[in-house]
Amino acid sequence: MREPRRPDTIFWVEPSAVQGDLLTLDAEESHHLLRVHRADRGASFVAVDGVGGSYDCVLESVEKGIAIGRIAKTTAGLGEPPVPIRLLVGLPDPGPAETVVVHAVPLGASTIDFVACSRSGRPPLGAARLDRLARIARSALKQSRRSRLPALRSSPSLDQALAGLGETLRYVADPLGQGSFQAPEAGAESAVVLAVGPPGGFTESEGAMLRDQQFTPISLGNSRLSTETAAIALLALARNIFK
Amino acid sequence: MREPRRPDTIFWVEPSAVQGDLLTLDAEESHHLLRVHRADRGASFVAVDGVGGSYDCVLESVEKGIAIGRIAKTTAGLGEPPVPIRLLVGLPDPGPAETVVVHAVPLGASTIDFVACSRSGRPPLGAARLDRLARIARSALKQSRRSRLPALRSSPSLDQALAGLGETLRYVADPLGQGSFQAPEAGAESAVVLAVGPPGGFTESEGAMLRDQQFTPISLGNSRLSTETAAIALLALARNIFK
Repeated sequence: MREPRRPDTIFWVEPSAVQGDLLTLDAEESHHLLRVHRADRGASFVAVDGVGGSYDCVLESVEKGIAIGRIAKTTAGLGEPPVPIRLLVGLPDPGPAETVVVHAVPLGASTIDFVACSRSGRPPLGAARLDRLARIARSALKQSRRSRLPALRSSPSLDQALAGLGETLRYVADPLGQGSFQAPEAGAESAVVLAVGPPGGFTESEGAMLRDQQFTPISLGNSRLSTETAAIALLALARNIFK
Repeated sequence: MREPRRPDTIFWVEPSAVQGDLLTLDAEESHHLLRVHRADRGASFVAVDGVGGSYDCVLESVEKGIAIGRIAKTTAGLGEPPVPIRLLVGLPDPGPAETVVVHAVPLGASTIDFVACSRSGRPPLGAARLDRLARIARSALKQSRRSRLPALRSSPSLDQALAGLGETLRYVADPLGQGSFQAPEAGAESAVVLAVGPPGGFTESEGAMLRDQQFTPISLGNSRLSTETAAIALLALARNIFK
């Protein structure tokens, strides 16, 4: 006998649409709850606001196709890693960039910066492309039951991506790297920055910049990884240390 | 000034087409070398046979569009992990299965078994689908500069996937897992098996089977991961221990 798949859906709610113990889904999410899932008044659902709030709700009312839920329970920071993890990825082609977002959001990245490096061979991402990636990130967030939507950026150079990082633990994927991750000190408020080169890798001068900025080189094995595979692998390693 | 991208191409050669110090590319790879890369006699290229051999070659002759190379240097086991890593992945939809292959090949999987688990909701992969995945694996192998093509399989049940694994270190992705990877003993010939559930996860009885078979449960963090993200992440962790 086949067991049923577990129910799988979390709904998105804009932070501004959470007021007191009521929240209002937008037209698209309401349609999904009311038409696709055929929810009736009294049905339970879960919504997430992307700034850390998860809400167990009961469908209170429906007005012109818009679902209003009564919040039964609020949870903060559900599914979030204990420290912020910033991923600097040398800007690859559009498909690989989407792949990074699809996997890096569930793995806990808090910022993903697609850095237009020397070998990226393209300008930083514009608003339309970042919007598209943000929609992918939102969908990945819901599926992964995280509660904070990562910030998506595209710095015009590595130099600018590294400006003002502050006190962080820093690692770079490097085939020749001899370093390893350090377990975080108990009680220390820390943040992590992970850097992965674009297709073709960082240039010599970019590599020197990363060394100057105290990035520890981490080898991901003796095969050659694409930018997107390396980004996911390095993030998986970091997530396993900082959990 | 922009630096050029590094040259990026490895050619595939069937093991049977390597004879003495000559090797013969097939029609497709010959076309790629001669037409796309416009190689002339005397040009250098690298070929890989998928069973551990990498060959530094010089283009010796061209006969009816078929390229024959003289082998200048043979390297065994290039880009391979020190121990075999078998990945058991609960069979997902076709797209996610391809995603697993795309990333698991560069990360060093030696076998990928798409296991038709209870919640997979589909039969094991047939020959046509496995052929398609094998083509993706071959392309990923060339790009990653590995030299052994992973075996691709699709077991009809977890029970059958676990039959006859022999002496191996065993890990399963488990959101509630408290285990961790053990560094391999020096000099010990070992192999690693990694298990990841299908969409919806392993059933209770499949979970019990894995516990009975001494799989150590490894948590990949407190968010929920898709089958493909979990497979890549678990493999990245294993690859980092066994390198």
